[in-house]
Amino acid sequence: MTLNEIAKALDIPCESNIEISGLNTLQDSNNCELTFLENKKYIKDLENTKAAAVLVKEDFVSKVPAGTFALVCDEPYLKLAYASNLFASTIVEEIGEECIIGNNSTIMKNVFLGKNSTIGTNCTIMAGAFIGDNVTIGNNTIVYPNVTIYRDCVVGNDCIIHAGTVIGSDGFGFANTKDGKYIKIYQNGNVIIGNDVEIGANTAIDRAVFKSTIISDGVRIDNLVHIAHNCKLGAGCILTGQVGLSGSTTLHEYVIMGGQSATAGHLEIAPFTTIAARGGVTKTISEPKKQWAGFPLFEHRQWLKLQGKISKLLNK
Amino acid sequence: MTLNEIAKALDIPCESNIEISGLNTLQDSNNCELTFLENKKYIKDLENTKAAAVLVKEDFVSKVPAGTFALVCDEPYLKLAYASNLFASTIVEEIGEECIIGNNSTIMKNVFLGKNSTIGTNCTIMAGAFIGDNVTIGNNTIVYPNVTIYRDCVVGNDCIIHAGTVIGSDGFGFANTKDGKYIKIYQNGNVIIGNDVEIGANTAIDRAVFKSTIISDGVRIDNLVHIAHNCKLGAGCILTGQVGLSGSTTLHEYVIMGGQSATAGHLEIAPFTTIAARGGVTKTISEPKKQWAGFPLFEHRQWLKLQGKISKLLNK
Amino acid sequence: MTLNEIAKALDIPCESNIEISGLNTLQDSNNCELTFLENKKYIKDLENTKAAAVLVKEDFVSKVPAGTFALVCDEPYLKLAYASNLFASTIVEEIGEECIIGNNSTIMKNVFLGKNSTIGTNCTIMAGAFIGDNVTIGNNTIVYPNVTIYRDCVVGNDCIIHAGTVIGSDGFGFANTKDGKYIKIYQNGNVIIGNDVEIGANTAIDRAVFKSTIISDGVRIDNLVHIAHNCKLGAGCILTGQVGLSGSTTLHEYVIMGGQSATAGHLEIAPFTTIAARGGVTKTISEPKKQWAGFPLFEHRQWLKLQGKISKLLNK
Repeated sequence: MTLNEIAKALDIPCESNIEISGLNTLQDSNNCELTFLENKKYIKDLENTKAAAVLVKEDFVSKVPAGTFALVCDEPYLKLAYASNLFASTIVEEIGEECIIGNNSTIMKNVFLGKNSTIGTNCTIMAGAFIGDNVTIGNNTIVYPNVTIYRDCVVGNDCIIHAGTVIGSDGFGFANTKDGKYIKIYQNGNVIIGNDVEIGANTAIDRAVFKSTIISDGVRIDNLVHIAHNCKLGAGCILTGQVGLSGSTTLHEYVIMGGQSATAGHLEIAPFTTIAARGGVTKTISEPKKQWAGFPLFEHRQWLKLQGKISKLLNK
Repeated sequence: MTLNEIAKALDIPCESNIEISGLNTLQDSNNCELTFLENKKYIKDLENTKAAAVLVKEDFVSKVPAGTFALVCDEPYLKLAYASNLFASTIVEEIGEECIIGNNSTIMKNVFLGKNSTIGTNCTIMAGAFIGDNVTIGNNTIVYPNVTIYRDCVVGNDCIIHAGTVIGSDGFGFANTKDGKYIKIYQNGNVIIGNDVEIGANTAIDRAVFKSTIISDGVRIDNLVHIAHNCKLGAGCILTGQVGLSGSTTLHEYVIMGGQSATAGHLEIAPFTTIAARGGVTKTISEPKKQWAGFPLFEHRQWLKLQGKISKLLNK
Repeated sequence: MTLNEIAKALDIPCESNIEISGLNTLQDSNNCELTFLENKKYIKDLENTKAAAVLVKEDFVSKVPAGTFALVCDEPYLKLAYASNLFASTIVEEIGEECIIGNNSTIMKNVFLGKNSTIGTNCTIMAGAFIGDNVTIGNNTIVYPNVTIYRDCVVGNDCIIHAGTVIGSDGFGFANTKDGKYIKIYQNGNVIIGNDVEIGANTAIDRAVFKSTIISDGVRIDNLVHIAHNCKLGAGCILTGQVGLSGSTTLHEYVIMGGQSATAGHLEIAPFTTIAARGGVTKTISEPKKQWAGFPLFEHRQWLKLQGKISKLLNK
């Protein structure tokens, strides 16, 4: 789609007819992508962006670098939401089973295999599983009944995905109009799951808005875990039952999160960090190998000490 | 069913043969409905009820209004539980696909469409979805794979329901017998979802015991959210991942609930209220547009201040 | 499988060719079973074990009783993980519907019935349900759409299992290798559900690693509840929405757990205990009929009092 086609759809004046391949962040856009600036906190990223074009308010046009077209508008994030629909894939391209299946793989009945999906060797895909279009599944992987894998997602070798789990559902993203409507930001990314990953029952992992939600090799995820869009889990992370990760959380390798613990969005947790059950992480944790607990979060030993102090209030 | 048929099934003496159409609360019953009083807190509602008949203890018979028959018994709520079974629909009337499907709608294979269900135009109902008897779905709505919509529920136009989500499961309702058995209260209501509603993956919304659980226009619900029976969500409410609403919670319009926040039952939250992540609401919030956090709940600023004070205990 | 076949697979010297039927704990093993000691806390159990053989470190060989073979190794738990795979059943033995179905039971289309599964009389198994191999379901039981019941599980009479629920998924069990790999402990047990049990939507109940996860008669479980492997729920327990039980938790009869409450693993809760919403149980509760709240947990009245004291900090 050309930039002026997009601009026309968004009702923004623009003369450039360069080809735009998709949407991305200020930092990650290449010179075929459209990006946006809503929050001036990211003004440095604007100055350094390599994007083909940027949705930007009048005030910040002077900061747009030379090689990038400015699409000037009042509500860049809302315009991005509208633009995201222009790049959204059809949710299912074809109803059929044209799909490559490796040797010795078992596809049980009542499985749906989408167009251009690929299943490796020695896999078992159990009844009621849904494998969307363009999904790739590696070798020796087991997909239990009633699992749903949305289009474009990738699952590695030696994985086990338990029943009822959903991979690749849309992230929770929308922009507000002034009159109180929510405009969906189409989640045109995917989920990429590495090798030797086991995921429990009735868990949900959202697809990325841009690029990929990433679950690295060796990760273990328990039942009823919620992983929002654009999270990145390093190798060997362990998420226990009912953990919740908000959007764009990055867990570095071997982070362990106890039951019902959770994170706010857009933060990082250093390698080998342990978050105790019910811990709530609201800020980036930079120092590796420490243990944390509570909400608000304290170092685990401090939290235990604090609970002792709190319980003494009963005697006052 | 006539009142004396019901009374006979419940082993309560009664001579009236007026026709009873169903069960309802003291407040909402019309003159064809049967209701009950268990908790004397609701004695005012008893005095004003328009119900055809009421299950009531001996002590409160004098408060039953003139037009209403009193069915006198020791355990009104338990009797209601038994009565609810008399009005329960068959869980599936017919195994077949007799159903009205609008133009340009795609019903993928392995979809079950119940008797008298209606799908509007431009819908996509994906593989493994279950659409129960008498379900109505509007236009332009997408139902992702392995979604279950129980009988009698209504979904509006322009909705998106992500994979694995369940709409219309039975509310968690039962009465106790003296010897420790739980008698199911059949959940004979439904769920009504408005227009432009998006619901995430593996969420569960229970049907009402009487009447409807209501999700109004424009609501956004994330993954793994639990909405109990008879909740009412006003227009534009946002429920983030793993939120839990207890039974008969009313959220007025544009209430926002952060991740893992929750409410007790039978309470109301004023318009434009924000509950921070993990907030636990146990009482009605009457004043609109305020922000709350914590469990117990405080105004957000107070909560932050309180956490500061608490953390100082460490130095004492 | 003989003990020397197992030992050979685990690379441990052993000459005995006694027949081993499976794996079990030190306490529960019979004289055909293999067990392990990792944590010296259980040394008494080692001294009293009736197991045919035990995986054990050099240091504790002297404590192995006379009738039990010692399989000496550095990492007994890791070896157990490898051994568990030797006893794992095929996840699905046959793709077919050879199964015994009682009179007057309805099996809707798109149901998968595994080999040797048995459905009683008057049951309804709804579309998209998966009933694995060797599953037994009693009489008058309703299985709603898209429920998954893994192989070898047992469901009693008069049960209701709501849509999307998963019964018998693998417990979250693995041993660590020194180089940071997780070795799956195959969960070769099952789930046994008694009579008159109702389970809500999108709940997950894991199968036991050895023996059975047990849900006794009359239990009520709400939506989105997580029950880990080897839990035991006594008769009449009530688990409200989004409760989470860690592995090997035992609830004695009539324990009530409020919404989003949770337990750590390997503990017991006495009969008629009530845990308020959000309560977090980390130690065994021995005294019956008490009410508890909070995290850390206090007696409910104490917790309320403590919250009062805490809120006074605001004025200091």
